[in-house]
Amino acid sequence: MPGNSTGTYFRVTTFGESHGAALGVVIDGCPANLVLNLSAITDDLARRRPGQSSLVSPRKEADDFEIVSGLFEGRTLGSPLTFLFRNLDADARPYEAMKDLYRPSHADFTTEARYGHRDWRGGGRASARETVARVAAGAVARQLLHRAGVEIVAWVDRVGDIDAAYSGAVSREVVDANPVRCPDPLRAAEMEALIRQVRKEGDTVGGVIRGRAVGVPAGWGEPVFGKMEARLAEAMMSIPAAKGFTSGSGFEGARRRGSENNDAFYQDSTGTIRTRSNHSGGIQGGISNGMPVEIAVAFKPVATLFRPQETVTRTGAAAVIEPQGRHDPCVVPRAVPIVEAMMALVLADLRLGVSRSV
Amino acid sequence: MPGNSTGTYFRVTTFGESHGAALGVVIDGCPANLVLNLSAITDDLARRRPGQSSLVSPRKEADDFEIVSGLFEGRTLGSPLTFLFRNLDADARPYEAMKDLYRPSHADFTTEARYGHRDWRGGGRASARETVARVAAGAVARQLLHRAGVEIVAWVDRVGDIDAAYSGAVSREVVDANPVRCPDPLRAAEMEALIRQVRKEGDTVGGVIRGRAVGVPAGWGEPVFGKMEARLAEAMMSIPAAKGFTSGSGFEGARRRGSENNDAFYQDSTGTIRTRSNHSGGIQGGISNGMPVEIAVAFKPVATLFRPQETVTRTGAAAVIEPQGRHDPCVVPRAVPIVEAMMALVLADLRLGVSRSV
Amino acid sequence: MPGNSTGTYFRVTTFGESHGAALGVVIDGCPANLVLNLSAITDDLARRRPGQSSLVSPRKEADDFEIVSGLFEGRTLGSPLTFLFRNLDADARPYEAMKDLYRPSHADFTTEARYGHRDWRGGGRASARETVARVAAGAVARQLLHRAGVEIVAWVDRVGDIDAAYSGAVSREVVDANPVRCPDPLRAAEMEALIRQVRKEGDTVGGVIRGRAVGVPAGWGEPVFGKMEARLAEAMMSIPAAKGFTSGSGFEGARRRGSENNDAFYQDSTGTIRTRSNHSGGIQGGISNGMPVEIAVAFKPVATLFRPQETVTRTGAAAVIEPQGRHDPCVVPRAVPIVEAMMALVLADLRLGVSRSV
Amino acid sequence: MPGNSTGTYFRVTTFGESHGAALGVVIDGCPANLVLNLSAITDDLARRRPGQSSLVSPRKEADDFEIVSGLFEGRTLGSPLTFLFRNLDADARPYEAMKDLYRPSHADFTTEARYGHRDWRGGGRASARETVARVAAGAVARQLLHRAGVEIVAWVDRVGDIDAAYSGAVSREVVDANPVRCPDPLRAAEMEALIRQVRKEGDTVGGVIRGRAVGVPAGWGEPVFGKMEARLAEAMMSIPAAKGFTSGSGFEGARRRGSENNDAFYQDSTGTIRTRSNHSGGIQGGISNGMPVEIAVAFKPVATLFRPQETVTRTGAAAVIEPQGRHDPCVVPRAVPIVEAMMALVLADLRLGVSRSV
Repeated sequence: MPGNSTGTYFRVTTFGESHGAALGVVIDGCPANLVLNLSAITDDLARRRPGQSSLVSPRKEADDFEIVSGLFEGRTLGSPLTFLFRNLDADARPYEAMKDLYRPSHADFTTEARYGHRDWRGGGRASARETVARVAAGAVARQLLHRAGVEIVAWVDRVGDIDAAYSGAVSREVVDANPVRCPDPLRAAEMEALIRQVRKEGDTVGGVIRGRAVGVPAGWGEPVFGKMEARLAEAMMSIPAAKGFTSGSGFEGARRRGSENNDAFYQDSTGTIRTRSNHSGGIQGGISNGMPVEIAVAFKPVATLFRPQETVTRTGAAAVIEPQGRHDPCVVPRAVPIVEAMMALVLADLRLGVSRSV
Repeated sequence: MPGNSTGTYFRVTTFGESHGAALGVVIDGCPANLVLNLSAITDDLARRRPGQSSLVSPRKEADDFEIVSGLFEGRTLGSPLTFLFRNLDADARPYEAMKDLYRPSHADFTTEARYGHRDWRGGGRASARETVARVAAGAVARQLLHRAGVEIVAWVDRVGDIDAAYSGAVSREVVDANPVRCPDPLRAAEMEALIRQVRKEGDTVGGVIRGRAVGVPAGWGEPVFGKMEARLAEAMMSIPAAKGFTSGSGFEGARRRGSENNDAFYQDSTGTIRTRSNHSGGIQGGISNGMPVEIAVAFKPVATLFRPQETVTRTGAAAVIEPQGRHDPCVVPRAVPIVEAMMALVLADLRLGVSRSV
Repeated sequence: MPGNSTGTYFRVTTFGESHGAALGVVIDGCPANLVLNLSAITDDLARRRPGQSSLVSPRKEADDFEIVSGLFEGRTLGSPLTFLFRNLDADARPYEAMKDLYRPSHADFTTEARYGHRDWRGGGRASARETVARVAAGAVARQLLHRAGVEIVAWVDRVGDIDAAYSGAVSREVVDANPVRCPDPLRAAEMEALIRQVRKEGDTVGGVIRGRAVGVPAGWGEPVFGKMEARLAEAMMSIPAAKGFTSGSGFEGARRRGSENNDAFYQDSTGTIRTRSNHSGGIQGGISNGMPVEIAVAFKPVATLFRPQETVTRTGAAAVIEPQGRHDPCVVPRAVPIVEAMMALVLADLRLGVSRSV
Repeated sequence: MPGNSTGTYFRVTTFGESHGAALGVVIDGCPANLVLNLSAITDDLARRRPGQSSLVSPRKEADDFEIVSGLFEGRTLGSPLTFLFRNLDADARPYEAMKDLYRPSHADFTTEARYGHRDWRGGGRASARETVARVAAGAVARQLLHRAGVEIVAWVDRVGDIDAAYSGAVSREVVDANPVRCPDPLRAAEMEALIRQVRKEGDTVGGVIRGRAVGVPAGWGEPVFGKMEARLAEAMMSIPAAKGFTSGSGFEGARRRGSENNDAFYQDSTGTIRTRSNHSGGIQGGISNGMPVEIAVAFKPVATLFRPQETVTRTGAAAVIEPQGRHDPCVVPRAVPIVEAMMALVLADLRLGVSRSV
C-alpha cells in the first residue's frame, strides 16, 4: 500500500505538505465512546511546536487544530476521527532560491527521483512539519492506552557526545524541566550549551532519545513479522532524521554473553511473573512480557546548515548552497513528543489487535 | 492484520512450527515469467542450515523443499508460489522436561500470555527454524532484484567484543571463506575461537551483522511511514534475537555535527548524481538515492544456555532450568543469509510498489 | 482493517458525518504529475448534488471543495490528495425529534448496536452525503483512466416497474438529457411521473442503474479473491441503499444454457481478439477480456417516508415515526454519478495493480 | 495487494493449481484454543467433492487433507493454520489438445493477457478446484461462528428456468435430501431431470443459490466500504461462475415502494428489537440487525460444453474447440457448500473485527 498510513486496527493516515493549505490526520479504527481530552492533545502538540524555546526553529505555528469528523458530544463515534491543521506561518520565500538545487542529505533529490515532481516549499511532504499530525494521533492513542493502564515517556539521552546519566523512573515533569528534555540536569545544561554553540557556528548536531512504556501487560504483539520491536522499529525509523533503533540491550547486548544478558524469571509478592533484569526491554519473541518496554532512537544532525555546502542543480551542474529559512540546530528536544506519539500509535494498534478468545 | 505476512506487492506469508509436520511460505505477487534458479535457492538455504559447520547447531535438516504451486514449466505463473519444508529431524524429547517451565529470554512465557496455548516442542512458531521459509522467499526476491541490477551481501561485523576491520566492496566469496562469515580473516579466527570458548562454557555470545545492497536506483521507497529504512528496520527486527538496527551512520551519526554527517552531491563522469560520502546509507527521506544501501543489525546472545538458570514454572513456582537440545552458541554466522533474505524481501516489495507514471 | 478505506494502490479513505463540520477524502497512491482538471471534478459533483432538480432532495449544498494537500502547481505530487467539503446547509432540527427513535430500514439501530454512540443528525456517517467524497475521488480516478483510454458511463435502467428500452452506446449527453438520467426518453418521462407521484404520496421508489466501462484492455484484475467482478460488487454494494449487483448476464444468465450464454472468440479486422457476444460483461475468470465491462446495481426505495410508520424507541418502547427533513423520493437519478465514481475507483486500482513483468 | 487472500482478521490465503502438486490454504488470525472438529471439515469437503453423485464431474479426488501447521494437541495455536490437499487424480491429457486454444467464457485468454504465462492443465489457478481450499477454511470459520451462535445454510433456489417453492427454515438435512440440494423436493426432481437432459445434449445450465445465516447478533459489519453486504458480495462474486448477488429484497426490492419494502421495528416478548419483515436481509447500513442474513447468488452455466464452439488459437487464428475432460453440467449442487464457506469466512472476519470498547 502507499506509504502514508500506519497501523491495522488503529489506522492512521496523515496528509499535507509543509507549506500547503493544511496538514491533517485521519484515524480509522478509534473505538467509539472515548471522551477525548482536548487539552491533553494541545499539551502534546505544544511540546512539538516550533518556537517553544530559544533552542528550536522560530517558525510560528500555533498548531491549533480542528476536529472535522468522528467526534460528537465530546465522545468518539467510531467513525474516522480527523484533525486539520492550517499552515498559517508558511513562508516559501527562503526556499525559492533553492528550488532548483538539491539540499544535501535532504529528500529533495530522492523525492524527484521517485515522483518527478516536488513541492520545494519547506520540504513539502518530507518536512518534519508532517509530524504535527502524528503527535495529534498519538495523543488520542495515549488516551486509549491510559485506560489500559499504559503510560509512555521519552527523553533525550544524548546530544552529540554528551551522554546523560540517570536511573530509575523518569517522569514528564523531570523531562520538561529543561528545554533539552533531558532528565539529567547537569548534562542537560551542557547539551543546551552545545546546541547554542553549533547554532552559532551555522552547524547542527545529532542525538539519542530513549522511550519507555510502563503498564503494558504480558501478551501484546505478534510473533513473527508483527513483533512488537519490529513494529516499534518501523515506527521510529519513519520519523524524519531517525537512523538507528534499539530495544532492550540493543547493540550493547550484542557484546554480551547469554549468561549476562538473559532475564531470569521470578514471581513477585503479588503473584506476577516478572524478570530480575530487563535486557529484553519488555519484549520476548516479539510479545510484551509485562516489564517496561524500553527503546532508543538515534537521530542524525539536522541536514540544513547555515554555511556553504557543495551540491548540484536539478540538471546536475555543480553548485554551492547556503540555505535560508527557519530550522532547528538539533532535532531531539522537539522529537521527544514524536517518539512518544509513535510509541503510542504502535501500542494502541497492538492492543486492539490482540485477538479474541474463541 | 495478523503477524505472519510481510510486504504489500511481493507478499510473503510463512507458516509452520519447529517440530510440526512442515514449514512453508506462500509468496503472493511474484511476477509471472520469472525462470526460477532452483540451485541458487538451495545455495541460500545451505548457508542458513544447521549442521553446516562445527560452529552451529547440529540439528540435521537437509532443508529440501518442494514447490507445490505457482511454478509451471520452470517459470512462475504469477499465482501464489509456495515452498514446503518437511521437518525430518524434529526431536521433541529434549523439550519434554521443560514443557512446564519458561526458558529465560525465550518466547515461552509471552506466547502463553498471548495465546493461552503453546507448542513447547522446540519453541514452536517462535523458533528460528521459521526463518528457513524466509530464506527461500528471499532467494526468489533476490532473483527478481538481480534482473533489476541489485545485489545484496551481508556479513558478520562483530562477535562479542571483537570488531572486524575491512573496507571497500565485500563479496560473498570473501564472506564465506570462513565459518564465521566475517570478511576480516584475522578477526574471523578470533571470533571463531571465542564462539568455541563460549560453547565450551555452556554459554552464548551476541554479534552484529552488516548488510549492503548495491545497484538500487534512486527513487525506491515511500516517503512517510513506508520509508525504506522503516521497512528495513521492521524486517530486521522481525528476525529472532535482533535487538538493534541502524541505517547509514546510525548511532555514530547521532554524535556528529551536520557538517561532518551531510553527504555532498556531485555529478560523476557518467552524468549520474552521487554523494561524496554515504552517511545516509543510500536512503534520504526514506527513498533510495542510488548509493549503496547500508544497514547493521544487532543480535543478542542466544538465550539457550547449557548451564542452570533461575526461572518459574507455568504456575509461577520457582525452578531451575538447564536446557537440553541442539542450539547455536552464536547466531550471527547463520543469520547472515537471513539478513540478506529480509533485505531482498523489502527491496523487491518496494521495487514493485514504485507507482506508475500517469 | 476498519471500513472507511477502499482500494490497495489507489487507496481512498473518506471521513465525515452528514451534519458535522466537514466531509472529505484522502487519496493515497494517486500517481504524481497528473494535471487535475478541476472543472471536470466540479461537473461530476454537480450531478450528485442535492437540489439539482425538482426530483431530488432540496438540501442546498454547493459541494464546493478545497484541495488541502497533494497538488502543487496544478499537478499531483504523489502524496495524499485530500478534498475537503464543508457542511454549509446542515440543519439538524428535523432530526432532533427522532433522535431517540430508530427510523425503519435506516442505519440508526445498527449503528448503535455496533458503536453504542450515534450522531443522530441526518444519519451521521451512514448518510448518503458521504458519497460526495466518493464522487470527488472517482473524478480523479476517471482522469487517470481517461489517459489509459477508459471511459465510464452509467444510467438509470429502471424505476419501480418501469424498465427502459435502448441499445448500443450510451453517452453522458443522452443520460443527462432528462432529470431521471435514463437514455430512453419515453420511459424517462414515465419514470419522472412515477417519482413525482410517489413523492406526492409521501412514499419512495427503488430502481436499477447500469454501468459500462469501455476501453478497458484485456488483463486487468486478479484471478481469485480480487476478481474484477468481486471488486466491482464490493464497491457497488457499499453504496447506500444498494441491494443487488450483476455483471454481464447476471441473474438472467442463470436461466440459460451454456450454449446460449458462452461468448465465442474471434479475431477482428484489426487483429484484436474479441467475443461475438458479451454475456461475460467484459470479465472472464475475474480479469478483463477487452470487451465493455457491464454491470447493474439494484437500489431499494429510500427508507425515509413522509408517512407514519411503526417503530421503537432506543429503550424498545413502541412508537410511531413520521420523519421530517429533506429527502429524495428516488435515489437513482443522483446515484448515477456515484456508480460511475465507484467503477472508476475499482478500475483505477486494478490498473495500478497490474504487476510489472520481471 | 495481490488477489489470493481475503479477510483482515481471519485472513485466508489459498494457493495451488488444478493439476499442480497440491492446493492449500493458510488461515492467519484463527484464534487459539479452538478444538478443531476434523470430521465436520471432512463432511463439508465431501459436499463439494467431484464424483459425489451422478449429477457432477466424475473426477475422483478424495480431498483428503493434511494440516501441516497451527494445530497442536487438537487445538489451534493462533499461528497460521495450513491445510494441504494433494492433487491425486489430475489428468492433464484431455487439456493438451486445447492448450493453444482459448476455451470460450473460460479464463484462458484473460489469464494469458494478465500474466503472459498459463498452466493450461485443467484451468490452472482459475479452476473451480481452488474452492476446495475455501471450503476447508470455511469449515473452520463455521466452527468459530457456531460458538457465537451463528449457523449458516445454503441451498439451490433455481436451475435454469425452474424456481423452487418453499418457506420458513431450511435445514441441511432437507437440503441434502436430494442431489440437487434444493429444499423443494418436487422442483428438485425437475431440476435433476433438466441437468441430466442438458448433460445428454453436451450442454450446461445455470442456477441460483440462496444463503442464510441465523444467529448473527446486531452490530457486526463496518459502515462505509466494509458493509456486510459489500463484503458478502465480494466473497460471492469471487466464486467461479458467479455473475450476480443480492441481499434481502435485491432486484425485487428495486421495483417496490418504500412503504412496501421498509422493515418496521418492534420489540418481541423477550425484549429483543426485531423487524416485522426482513426485506433488509438482516443488514441495515452495512451492519447486521439481528435478523437472518439473507443473500442470493446467480451462477452462469458452466462454460465447458461437449459440443463444437467457435474460438481462436493463441495466435488469433480461427478454430473450433470441442473440449474433453471431466466437467459438471451444472455448478450449483456443488456450489452450495462453497457459498456457505464464503459466508462463513466473511462473518468470522467481521465478528473478529468488531472493535473493543474503550
